[in-house]
Amino acid sequence: MENWLTARTRATPGRLALRHDGVSWDYAALARLVEQLAGGLAAAGVRPGDRVGALLPNGVLYAALVHALMRLGAVLVPLNTRLTVAELAWQVTRAGVALLLHSAETSSLAAEVVRQSPLQRRAVEELPACQSARPAQPVDLDAVQAIVFTSGTTGQPKGAMLTYGNHFWSAMASAYRIGVLPGDRWLSILPLYHVGGLAVLFRSCLYGTAAVLQEGFEVEAVNRSLDEEAITLASLVPTMLYRLLPARSSWPDTLRLVLLGGAAASPELVAQAAAAGVPVATTYGLTEASSQVATMLPEEVRRKPGSAGRPLLFNQVRIVDDSGAPLPAGGVGEIAVRGPAVMAGYYGEPEATARTLRDGWLHTGDMGYLDEEGDLWLVQRRSDIIVSGGENVYPAEVEAVLRAHPAVAAVAVVGLPDPEWGEQVAALVVPAAGQELSAGALQDFARRLLAGYKLPRRIAFVEELPQTASGKIARAAVREMLLASGNDTEEG
Amino acid sequence: MENWLTARTRATPGRLALRHDGVSWDYAALARLVEQLAGGLAAAGVRPGDRVGALLPNGVLYAALVHALMRLGAVLVPLNTRLTVAELAWQVTRAGVALLLHSAETSSLAAEVVRQSPLQRRAVEELPACQSARPAQPVDLDAVQAIVFTSGTTGQPKGAMLTYGNHFWSAMASAYRIGVLPGDRWLSILPLYHVGGLAVLFRSCLYGTAAVLQEGFEVEAVNRSLDEEAITLASLVPTMLYRLLPARSSWPDTLRLVLLGGAAASPELVAQAAAAGVPVATTYGLTEASSQVATMLPEEVRRKPGSAGRPLLFNQVRIVDDSGAPLPAGGVGEIAVRGPAVMAGYYGEPEATARTLRDGWLHTGDMGYLDEEGDLWLVQRRSDIIVSGGENVYPAEVEAVLRAHPAVAAVAVVGLPDPEWGEQVAALVVPAAGQELSAGALQDFARRLLAGYKLPRRIAFVEELPQTASGKIARAAVREMLLASGNDTEEG
Repeated sequence: MENWLTARTRATPGRLALRHDGVSWDYAALARLVEQLAGGLAAAGVRPGDRVGALLPNGVLYAALVHALMRLGAVLVPLNTRLTVAELAWQVTRAGVALLLHSAETSSLAAEVVRQSPLQRRAVEELPACQSARPAQPVDLDAVQAIVFTSGTTGQPKGAMLTYGNHFWSAMASAYRIGVLPGDRWLSILPLYHVGGLAVLFRSCLYGTAAVLQEGFEVEAVNRSLDEEAITLASLVPTMLYRLLPARSSWPDTLRLVLLGGAAASPELVAQAAAAGVPVATTYGLTEASSQVATMLPEEVRRKPGSAGRPLLFNQVRIVDDSGAPLPAGGVGEIAVRGPAVMAGYYGEPEATARTLRDGWLHTGDMGYLDEEGDLWLVQRRSDIIVSGGENVYPAEVEAVLRAHPAVAAVAVVGLPDPEWGEQVAALVVPAAGQELSAGALQDFARRLLAGYKLPRRIAFVEELPQTASGKIARAAVREMLLASGNDTEEG
Repeated sequence: MENWLTARTRATPGRLALRHDGVSWDYAALARLVEQLAGGLAAAGVRPGDRVGALLPNGVLYAALVHALMRLGAVLVPLNTRLTVAELAWQVTRAGVALLLHSAETSSLAAEVVRQSPLQRRAVEELPACQSARPAQPVDLDAVQAIVFTSGTTGQPKGAMLTYGNHFWSAMASAYRIGVLPGDRWLSILPLYHVGGLAVLFRSCLYGTAAVLQEGFEVEAVNRSLDEEAITLASLVPTMLYRLLPARSSWPDTLRLVLLGGAAASPELVAQAAAAGVPVATTYGLTEASSQVATMLPEEVRRKPGSAGRPLLFNQVRIVDDSGAPLPAGGVGEIAVRGPAVMAGYYGEPEATARTLRDGWLHTGDMGYLDEEGDLWLVQRRSDIIVSGGENVYPAEVEAVLRAHPAVAAVAVVGLPDPEWGEQVAALVVPAAGQELSAGALQDFARRLLAGYKLPRRIAFVEELPQTASGKIARAAVREMLLASGNDTEEG
C-alpha cells in the first residue's frame, strides 16, 4: 500500500493539513517538512524497525515525526510528558528505544531520562534538514506503527503494538459512523502521545482534512479555536466538556460533532450538553483498539444519554463473565472487542498478550453492558474498580449517589489500601457553592442508597478535583489527597 | 474480511438502506430479504464461483441480489435491459452464465435469450424464500464480484472483472473526496447494470447510508425525489442535468452534491448549473476502474468548470502518447489510471487484458490532459472518437463549435462509415425554438472555426436527441438517424 501522506499530497496538495498556534500547513508543505525530517532521521541513523521515542508537546513537529517514521518504517514510541523520569526510563528501556526525540520544552526531562537508560537523544528541531534521497516506501498494514504504553488493568504499563492496518481500519470505521466532509477541521486537544490524539493525525491524512492541534486544555484557547478556526469536529473527555459548558452561551454552527470519550460520561453531563446545543457523540474506545470502538450519534444521544452506542463497522463487542462466557443483554461484565483495529499485542509481553487477546477477542478489562437495542454502556474502567473484601465496587455508582446530594458539586471515589479489606472506599468531594456539608451527613445520606461495602469510609473536601493532562480526573492524585487528609471518618 | 451487509446490519440495523417507489428498507429488513434470496439461490443450485445473470430493472430485488451473490460467493453478470436478444445471448454465453434472473418486466426478453443460449432462467421474485442455513462467508477482496460488459474502445463488448477489493477501495476513495454524512441519501437513477449504479449500492452499505433507486430518468420523478425524499447526493450524466436545469427554479438545501460524470461535461453546462445553485462535482470514471477516478468539488468547479479535478486518494492518473510514454502537463493523450480500484482484467480475454493493463496501468482509451495544477480534463471518450482519413476528430470539439451558433439548441456529432475516408463527420442538430437553420448555413459557420477534415459532411435536424437508459446521448441511434436521413449535404 502506498505511503499515506504521499498519496494524500498527490490527491489534494493544497488542502489544509494542520493548524497549530495560528500557523497553517497544507499537505504539500507538510510533505516537504516530513521529507526533510525523514532525511534528518535517516542521517541520525534511524533504520527500518528502530524504535524512536517522542517526548514532545503537541505541534507540527510531532505530526511531521509521525509521518517521517512512516516513511522510514521506524516505530514510534509516544511518551507521556507528565511522567516521572523513572517511569519514562522504564518505558524507553522496555521498548528498546534507540533514539529519544525531544523539543526545547522537554529538553531537560529528556536529558535525565537518557542518564538512566542506554540511548541517544536529539532535539527534533535540530535534526539535519536533509532531503530524503529515498522515495517513500510502501506501507505494510501489518507493520507496527507505534508502541503506546497504557496502564491497562493493573501493574506496570504495557506497550500496545498498533499497526498501520489498525489505524487504517479505525479511520475508515470512524468516518463511516460520524461522517467526514472535505472541509472538516478536527480540534485535537488530547495529547498526541494518547491514542485519541494520534488517531486524529492518521484520520486527517487519509480523509484529506485538517487537524487543529492545541497543547493541553485551556477553556479560553478552546473557545477561541471554536469561534475563529471553523472547527467542525472536536475530541473531548467529560471533564473538558464539564468545564466548557458554563463558559459558553452558544455553540458555533460550524461545529458538527463533539466526540466525547476517555471515561464513562455521566448521563446528566451528556443531557446537559445536548440541551445546551452541543452536538455530543458519546464514544467508547481504548488504546488497545486504536481508539474508537463504539459511538452514538448526537440525535440518538438526546434519546439515550450516557450510552456509547453501537460498535463501529467491522467491530464486534460482547460482554463476558469471569470465565469468558458471553452474557445476555443487560448483564454487566467485561467488555470484549474483536475487529481489525485491535492491536497486534503487548510488546515483549507474551503472557499479558495471551491473557488479553483470546480467540481474536480483546479483553478490555473495562466493565459494561449491552442493552436490548445493542447499545453499549460503559460502567467502569477496570483500572478504577475498587475491590473491597472481595466485592467489586464501581466508583461511578458511588459517585452518582453522592452527586445526588444537593450540597455536592463534584466527587471522585477511589480505593485506598486497607490491611483488612484489601481496599476501602474513599471519596474526595467538592461542595456546592455556599453549602455546608459534613462527612457524617454525606455518609448518612449514602447509607440509605448503597450496600454497606460500597459506603465511603473516608471522605475529604476540596475546592477542585485534580485532573490529568487530558482533562480526566487524576485518580492517583485523588488517592494521594485522601491519604494525606487527616479526615478519617472510618466506621465499624 | 467480514461480509459487508452482515457487518453493516450489526453496526446500524435501523438505518435506512434503500428506498424505491416510496417503500423504505432499513438494513435489518434488507438483510432478512438477502438471507432469504441467498437461500433461494442456493436451493436453485447456485454455487460459489457460478456466474449469475441479472436482467432486471432498478429496484430492491436487484439490490438484494447483489448482496445475496456476495453471501454465496457467486459472480454477478449485470445485463443491460436495452440490448437486443442477440447481444444478450452473446454476453451470457461469453460469461458462462448458468442462471439468468429476470423480473416480470423482463420475462419475455429473458425467455428469448434463453432460447439462444444454454442456460436456465428464473424470475427472481419466484425463487423459493428459503432461510439460508449457512452463515455469510467471509469476503475475499481479490474475488471477482461482477463481470460488467463494456463496449470499451472498439469491437465486441468485453467483460470487466471487478473484485470486491475494487469496490471497497473505490467506496473509500469516494467518501474521502466528496465526504459522507450519516444521513446521506444517494439518488441513483443510473441503471444498476452500469458501474455508476452498482457502486452506489456498495458505498451505501459500507457507509451505512441510503440508496434511493429510480428506474430510468424522468424529470418529474427526479424533481419529486429531490423535493420530498431529502436527497443529499445524486449521480447524473450531463444530459440529465441539461434537462433538469430548466425544470427547476431552485434546488433543495438538503442536496449536498451532484456527481456529474459518464461523459465530458461542457464547461457551459457546468457553469450554468453552478450559477443556478446546483452543487455540481464533475467526475471522470469508467467501468474498468469501478467508476470514480477523479472528482472536482463544487467550490472548485465554479473556478474551473469542465475539469474533472484531481485523482482520488490512492489513484494515479497520467496521460500517455501512442507509445505509452507519459506526456507533460497540457499534452492531450490517452488517460491511464493506476490504483486499487482498477479491474482484475477482461474475462476470458487475455490479449485484450494485456493490451489494456500494462505495468499496472489501465489504458482507458479515453483522451484527455492534465493541466498545470494536476486537474484532469476529459477531451473525448475513445469510443466516440471519429477517425477520418487517419486524422482523429473529437466530436466534443465539433459539437462545441456548432453549439456556438445562435440557432443551435443541441447537437451530437458522430462518425458514419465512408468508403474513402474510413469515417465521415456527421451532425444531428436540434434547432433553437423559432429559429431557421439550414445545413449549408451551419457548415459555412463551422468552416471558419474548424479544419476541413473536422467539418460535418452530413447534417440532419431533429426535435430531440436520442438518449440511452442512463440519459447519455445514444450515439448509435444518432448514427442510425443520420444514415436514414436523406439530407446528405456532402461536399467535395
